[in-house]
Amino acid sequence: MDLTWLLADPLPNALPRQQVLYQRLRAAILSARLAPGTRLPASRNLATELGIARNTVLHAYEQLIAEGCLVASRHGTRVASLPVAPALTGSGTPLGDPLPGLSQRGHLALRPAADSVRDTLPFAPGVPDVSAFPFRAWRGCLDRAWREATPRQLGYTAPGGEPALRRALASYLSSARGFAVQPEQVVITAGTHGAFELCARLLADAGDTVWLENPGYPAAYTAFTLAGLEPWPVAVDGDGLAPTPADWQHRPPRLIMVTPSHQYPTGAVMSLARRLELTARAHEHRAWLLEDDYDSEFRRNGPALPALYGLHPAAPVLYAGTFSKTLYPALRLGYLIVPRALADTFVRATAEATRPGHGIEQMALADFIEHGHYTTHLRRMRRRYAARQQALLAALARHPGAETAITGGDAGLHLTLWLPPDLDDRAVCAAAETQGLAVRPLSRYTHPPRKCNGMLLGYGNIDVPHMDGAVRRLRLAMRHAAGHSA
Amino acid sequence: MDLTWLLADPLPNALPRQQVLYQRLRAAILSARLAPGTRLPASRNLATELGIARNTVLHAYEQLIAEGCLVASRHGTRVASLPVAPALTGSGTPLGDPLPGLSQRGHLALRPAADSVRDTLPFAPGVPDVSAFPFRAWRGCLDRAWREATPRQLGYTAPGGEPALRRALASYLSSARGFAVQPEQVVITAGTHGAFELCARLLADAGDTVWLENPGYPAAYTAFTLAGLEPWPVAVDGDGLAPTPADWQHRPPRLIMVTPSHQYPTGAVMSLARRLELTARAHEHRAWLLEDDYDSEFRRNGPALPALYGLHPAAPVLYAGTFSKTLYPALRLGYLIVPRALADTFVRATAEATRPGHGIEQMALADFIEHGHYTTHLRRMRRRYAARQQALLAALARHPGAETAITGGDAGLHLTLWLPPDLDDRAVCAAAETQGLAVRPLSRYTHPPRKCNGMLLGYGNIDVPHMDGAVRRLRLAMRHAAGHSA
Repeated sequence: MDLTWLLADPLPNALPRQQVLYQRLRAAILSARLAPGTRLPASRNLATELGIARNTVLHAYEQLIAEGCLVASRHGTRVASLPVAPALTGSGTPLGDPLPGLSQRGHLALRPAADSVRDTLPFAPGVPDVSAFPFRAWRGCLDRAWREATPRQLGYTAPGGEPALRRALASYLSSARGFAVQPEQVVITAGTHGAFELCARLLADAGDTVWLENPGYPAAYTAFTLAGLEPWPVAVDGDGLAPTPADWQHRPPRLIMVTPSHQYPTGAVMSLARRLELTARAHEHRAWLLEDDYDSEFRRNGPALPALYGLHPAAPVLYAGTFSKTLYPALRLGYLIVPRALADTFVRATAEATRPGHGIEQMALADFIEHGHYTTHLRRMRRRYAARQQALLAALARHPGAETAITGGDAGLHLTLWLPPDLDDRAVCAAAETQGLAVRPLSRYTHPPRKCNGMLLGYGNIDVPHMDGAVRRLRLAMRHAAGHSA
Repeated sequence: MDLTWLLADPLPNALPRQQVLYQRLRAAILSARLAPGTRLPASRNLATELGIARNTVLHAYEQLIAEGCLVASRHGTRVASLPVAPALTGSGTPLGDPLPGLSQRGHLALRPAADSVRDTLPFAPGVPDVSAFPFRAWRGCLDRAWREATPRQLGYTAPGGEPALRRALASYLSSARGFAVQPEQVVITAGTHGAFELCARLLADAGDTVWLENPGYPAAYTAFTLAGLEPWPVAVDGDGLAPTPADWQHRPPRLIMVTPSHQYPTGAVMSLARRLELTARAHEHRAWLLEDDYDSEFRRNGPALPALYGLHPAAPVLYAGTFSKTLYPALRLGYLIVPRALADTFVRATAEATRPGHGIEQMALADFIEHGHYTTHLRRMRRRYAARQQALLAALARHPGAETAITGGDAGLHLTLWLPPDLDDRAVCAAAETQGLAVRPLSRYTHPPRKCNGMLLGYGNIDVPHMDGAVRRLRLAMRHAAGHSA
């Protein structure tokens, strides 16, 4: 029989020849090109026919016999009768039926908002200036952590995180936020995203309702939906989340996600009255509040409002913070503060709900905080971002535009500009994109039927000398979009 | 009015005094100990009364005015009327109603199997020997990655992972596993656990059925359940996963999780016939197969069977590998190989489904693989684990015991010893625990009504000279348990 076609196609470079022969023989058997019962040439003869070493053939035969594709007997080597189901026979190419695709919730993760996080163009919101990261101090801490690492730090990290980091954070939060927190209440997470996922899975079941701010953080919407929860967008006003009696009655939540210190993206600060009411109503409904305090390290005006977390010892609040904005996003470290009554149970559950790791990086971060590098870096970045915000506001005033209001200046890394109804935010942002700007339309953060029209201007990644030019390009884009819509 | 009680309790060390005064005043207002409308003393008077600086009082008043707890007028400073709901008034201590607890699925994560992963006692399964990790080479790669790091690597990592690592893995898998894989098909995950979570969320919806091996990997059961899927345990026999017609008919799966190379925990190798049938039936039912190839780097006898992944171009298979066993668990890096037709969609969805990070570590790992450190380390560990397995088998033979069979020796880091019905595996493992051994009962990996009775002996973390002693202690525990059950 002629088997020269086995090696007729060009051989891939990366594979040894015996592997190629084995693979092609196997494909021919599985596709029934070599029918069950077919007797193959003796290894010596096939080697001669193909012009390769006999050992190469022997090795391929042996492997195919080991896995049941070939059967050896004293009458020679034959192709086995394999129970190949019809769907997979007769073809080496993809079948008519395409592969199944993403699930319904999987499709949600394809929304275009996804790409915002990796944008480094001017005005991309939520992007910290990593060029100012204190590499030397950080690498010093990493080096020390590696030198001191034991097998324990290389194994799965202890539930809740490295004890040293939990201690350092409890102490940091007591001075920075006035929290009375025990290290046992600190749970290290994979950034804020990891905190969302933990809370969704450990505190809610599939089908439970989660309240999300509207407008709000799109990644929270995706994370909770992917965890099987039913998101219910609740309107935000100038005092923060503003649930109506109908919301409480018809969509009682199991989880409420809020950004009271600096609402994302409008920048609203939740009033104390609203905080008290929300906490009391959540308690009444046996719902958990998840307070996402994503950027209060960069407050500007006056003292920070106290967190929802410390408002009342019985408040059903978990507090989430992150190092993504204050250090660098790829570090993927954040934390949850869990009420004392829940802490032990929650921490034990995290060990199985995630597989905690990155113990070395956590030790380094504990060191970084304890040696004062963290507060020094924060102080420096606070000044830097304040100067950038001032420069942005000044440039916006110097080159006036159509915005009806600017909000969100109390903290963080972005401002929200509200646009008049006749100037569509998506048109403006599309025009800005042609100017090389990553301005985000507020409507992308909004769920219908609510209508928000505006744009987010991140200033974290634009240094002061470049601010005026960036604003000029923005104004150009706005005029361009206005001309088109007029 | 007498307000000396405000500072009567001992002051916490970590907080500045003005913060303490502020917090205690606020607590008194929120708990209505200071009733709405109460006029507070002038700051000068309160300062004198408490024996503290006037600025301390002023600062606390200002902050409380800013957040709406106090109202300042020309008549002085008064306690505001706050809309405090009944549930949160009248008490500074936790209320009668306890906080809500974990969700139903959250409770699942509390199962005792959870603690197995952090066990470093002899015989703990799945624990690699991290003492042999090539620290110097790895830190060299990390150092280089840090030196070459750009702001891009500190930001969110590109969807799918660092391109250099995806390239290095595609090339490694082509020589190690004979895969024809493009770098675009490689998705870097947070270990195997991260691969489970991605597949559960992107390929299945809440309520969909996932098939799990029985006995099987408990962490997979938890991960899929937490993702909202309905797990359906499918029996395993000597040829691997053995679904019955009833399984296909009554519980058609959306996802099938399998360990065909080395079934966890029995060690069964899935026969080719079973592989073909499973793939064809999965294709027919439009189900995805998730092949968890968690330890095939440590194969011992003969060539590795080809993966389910490469069996047929149209096979609906995703392949998961991990560096937890080959490098160290805390690294939290693994990968998924996604069929070409799905790759682009899947990779885009990962960016929103997770927040990818750890770019520096991924660059270091790419370097580590490309410079040959990975294969050198694997070769070394393969020899080391083979010697430990031999030593374990020899010691078990030298000190014979009641086991009826030993399976799982073809690969990996553990053996499975099957016990006779009259020797309960939980009793044996409890007795072993008193001997300082982390032997796991096979029944813990099993879902009723199926009954498996045996134990897992991990040998990855026991060096050869200590093996005999560990086996002697195990035999002692077995005799002890047998004596109790007799």
